[in-house]
Amino acid sequence: MNLVVLFESDFIPGSHTAVLEGRRLRHVRDIHRASPGHTLKVGMLNGLTGQGLITSMDRQRLSMEVSLDLEPPPPLPLNLVLALPRPKVLNRVVAAAASMGVKNIWLIHAYKVEKSYWQSPRLSPENLVAQSILGLEQARDTVLPAIAVKQRFKPFVEDELPAIAADTLALVADPSGETVPPVDLTTPVTLAIGPEGGFIPYEVDLLKRAGFTAVQLGQRILRVETALPAVIYRLFSPSLL
Amino acid sequence: MNLVVLFESDFIPGSHTAVLEGRRLRHVRDIHRASPGHTLKVGMLNGLTGQGLITSMDRQRLSMEVSLDLEPPPPLPLNLVLALPRPKVLNRVVAAAASMGVKNIWLIHAYKVEKSYWQSPRLSPENLVAQSILGLEQARDTVLPAIAVKQRFKPFVEDELPAIAADTLALVADPSGETVPPVDLTTPVTLAIGPEGGFIPYEVDLLKRAGFTAVQLGQRILRVETALPAVIYRLFSPSLL
Repeated sequence: MNLVVLFESDFIPGSHTAVLEGRRLRHVRDIHRASPGHTLKVGMLNGLTGQGLITSMDRQRLSMEVSLDLEPPPPLPLNLVLALPRPKVLNRVVAAAASMGVKNIWLIHAYKVEKSYWQSPRLSPENLVAQSILGLEQARDTVLPAIAVKQRFKPFVEDELPAIAADTLALVADPSGETVPPVDLTTPVTLAIGPEGGFIPYEVDLLKRAGFTAVQLGQRILRVETALPAVIYRLFSPSLL
Repeated sequence: MNLVVLFESDFIPGSHTAVLEGRRLRHVRDIHRASPGHTLKVGMLNGLTGQGLITSMDRQRLSMEVSLDLEPPPPLPLNLVLALPRPKVLNRVVAAAASMGVKNIWLIHAYKVEKSYWQSPRLSPENLVAQSILGLEQARDTVLPAIAVKQRFKPFVEDELPAIAADTLALVADPSGETVPPVDLTTPVTLAIGPEGGFIPYEVDLLKRAGFTAVQLGQRILRVETALPAVIYRLFSPSLL
């Protein structure tokens, strides 16, 4: 936790005093080993970042005086369209995407996504927000990604994706790609990443008809949690990252 | 498991028949849902890849006729010098590095590596090999990385690292870097990645004296399992990946 994300509800109304309990208190106490007088990096959810000066702390709660003055890091100009990963890796992938500044994520179905994955409680809005916040805390960001869940591939790709991908470079990672991803972009990208086992040719064709170009990442088959930072850091200029 | 890694000890002596039990049998049965007559991608540890035709299978064991004819994917020309991650992430990082074709890894101490991490049973050679094999199976590789464990920073950096980094581009990921990592390399790199919280200035200075240049990855603080594929896929030409 390199920044503590704060919520309006953490504040004593009409004051700059925030009160933390639970997970955040434990982290500050056990990992940061902070105590009264220490200053922590904090940020308002979807708002500015700044400092929190710890004024009191016991086993139940921590109070801090909060001052906010800095913009969070810039959002990454990326629309991420991701075949729903296995529940075991979904949490990590959402947190990693949030830590890299991804602000728009669509979790979609694909032929090789097991149907049972759609029953996972990890797809609840509460869990997706919680995992996103872990990523924001890691990267000192405050702006939650919007995560949409699309359980039908064809209607999404045909009816919604063309508008999402309009005025962006639309890429699908696929071994059939005849080019490699470009580098050092500063312009918007829509990136589609398939499930373990990849998109099937029918799905790649549908994406191509929606304006996507297939790009290949190399001959190795990577896990999605490895492929995602790999392709993002290749695509974008480090000035955006 | 996109390839089943086979060991000499799996084979009936003098034959091309391999017999699998335990984890690999369960994976083939429960995940691949393969049965006699099916063919699996296989590879000999540190050797060729090819096919295994399942000839019999029950709850205890599986027999396959193995033919090997293909070279594994090329190794990545990367020396990876990694501050020892938290035990919880060590397994994932080793498997991810192996999946990306990293063949030489040094796990080193640094000021911000908690001393207790060095007591982790996950540092056992048996576990490091097991995690590496998971990465090889993911990426259809067969060649184990060599993983060296160096619990003293200064003697390693002063006495061993200059020879390791000789004739390579030696880079340390650090926010002090005045340049960003290059792209599309096909030549050898030695890459040093610090712990959560980074290398301290003294450590960066020592690395610079050993021939390293600091490069910055961006303003976001990433987890090591995110930063590693990010920088590797930025550095190297996809033809090597």
